[in-house]
Amino acid sequence: MEVSILRNVLDANDLIAAENRRVFDARGCFVVNLMSAPGSGKTSILERTLRGLDGRLKAGVIEGDVLGTLDADRLAPLGVPVVQINTDPHFGGECHLDARMIRNALPELKLDGLDLVFIENVGNLVCPAEFRVGEDRKVMVLSVAEGDDKALKYPLMFRVSHLLLLNKVDLLSHVDFDPVRFRANVARVNPGLPVIELSARTGKGIDAWIGWLETEVAAAKGRVPCGAI
Amino acid sequence: MEVSILRNVLDANDLIAAENRRVFDARGCFVVNLMSAPGSGKTSILERTLRGLDGRLKAGVIEGDVLGTLDADRLAPLGVPVVQINTDPHFGGECHLDARMIRNALPELKLDGLDLVFIENVGNLVCPAEFRVGEDRKVMVLSVAEGDDKALKYPLMFRVSHLLLLNKVDLLSHVDFDPVRFRANVARVNPGLPVIELSARTGKGIDAWIGWLETEVAAAKGRVPCGAI
Repeated sequence: MEVSILRNVLDANDLIAAENRRVFDARGCFVVNLMSAPGSGKTSILERTLRGLDGRLKAGVIEGDVLGTLDADRLAPLGVPVVQINTDPHFGGECHLDARMIRNALPELKLDGLDLVFIENVGNLVCPAEFRVGEDRKVMVLSVAEGDDKALKYPLMFRVSHLLLLNKVDLLSHVDFDPVRFRANVARVNPGLPVIELSARTGKGIDAWIGWLETEVAAAKGRVPCGAI
Repeated sequence: MEVSILRNVLDANDLIAAENRRVFDARGCFVVNLMSAPGSGKTSILERTLRGLDGRLKAGVIEGDVLGTLDADRLAPLGVPVVQINTDPHFGGECHLDARMIRNALPELKLDGLDLVFIENVGNLVCPAEFRVGEDRKVMVLSVAEGDDKALKYPLMFRVSHLLLLNKVDLLSHVDFDPVRFRANVARVNPGLPVIELSARTGKGIDAWIGWLETEVAAAKGRVPCGAI
């Protein structure tokens, strides 16, 4: 019974995610669902990215947190539209964003003129991987401080992601993280997953990540009629 | 309706957690539910702790992971009884341990003669905080690499915990973590929460943590009749 409830929940979620996708597509918005464990550096990467884009792509952000507006407050000075979702209507709060939360947030985010929408998910390596929200691409962040074994312990996240940002590489000489073992573990779970090594602290790798975004957005623009709903 | 389903699930869980507690109490086992985000260092702390206890307290471990036996394999050479739970019966796997999983694991763990059982939860700062498993104490781990803001973003975990182990303090000079801001954020959510700073890598603080465990176990032995079910 638990399995069938879960299936129904995920089926219902997928329907709403598909609706969200139609809304994003009609506006020509490319959508990235950014996921990671707590404290891997999603918000710091977004700060660097939004500065690095320097207006070449117009971006907006949907921030997901159990509680509070800390991350939205950090991004506000960058002059991009930011909408905060709190998943905390009852008890401990939801540990992931789902498609309905994104649908409910959309009226607050002016999509017209946006090329790119980042959805920063709740920090969690398990459940966010199960819920489509209407994104074009799922991008996961892993910090080297979390260890080189995570692909084997949280395989679904690594399997569904289109890109892995390996963050905090400035810490590599201070932590027990073996890049060779890391790559081998990732390859066991998702052999084709591209990895960009970066440091939101030093800026290393941010250009490569922005290059990836620009390529993806350009390819999507080729596919999708822009600007009219 | 969602809220009432959640309440029923948690009520049912609490009943089984209370059963588990009776089993542990009757055997004189003190139980620690160890929780954190992925990669905060729970297993490394356990390795140090089991070595540091040096047989003064007899300990066993219940390892919770979505998939695999990596952590149980790491602890096996230490000669303590270890039972692995995988939460992956369907799709992405459960993102937390619940009381029923612990009940199902108990026949595999010989409790006789154990003073202390560590339950290493799935790496997640949200849902594990919602599910009692029959523990005496909830202990959370936070790595300084995760940032000083986590208490405000994942408040339930900080609120339900009896102790916070601040791990990876050897990285303090390499990350943007302000200990004063961290303490202030924790105090806003759970003013009385004790914090032990440690490094599983260097061993710093492990003695203080073992001291806390010994004090707690001794106090519990005073309360509970030992050895007979």
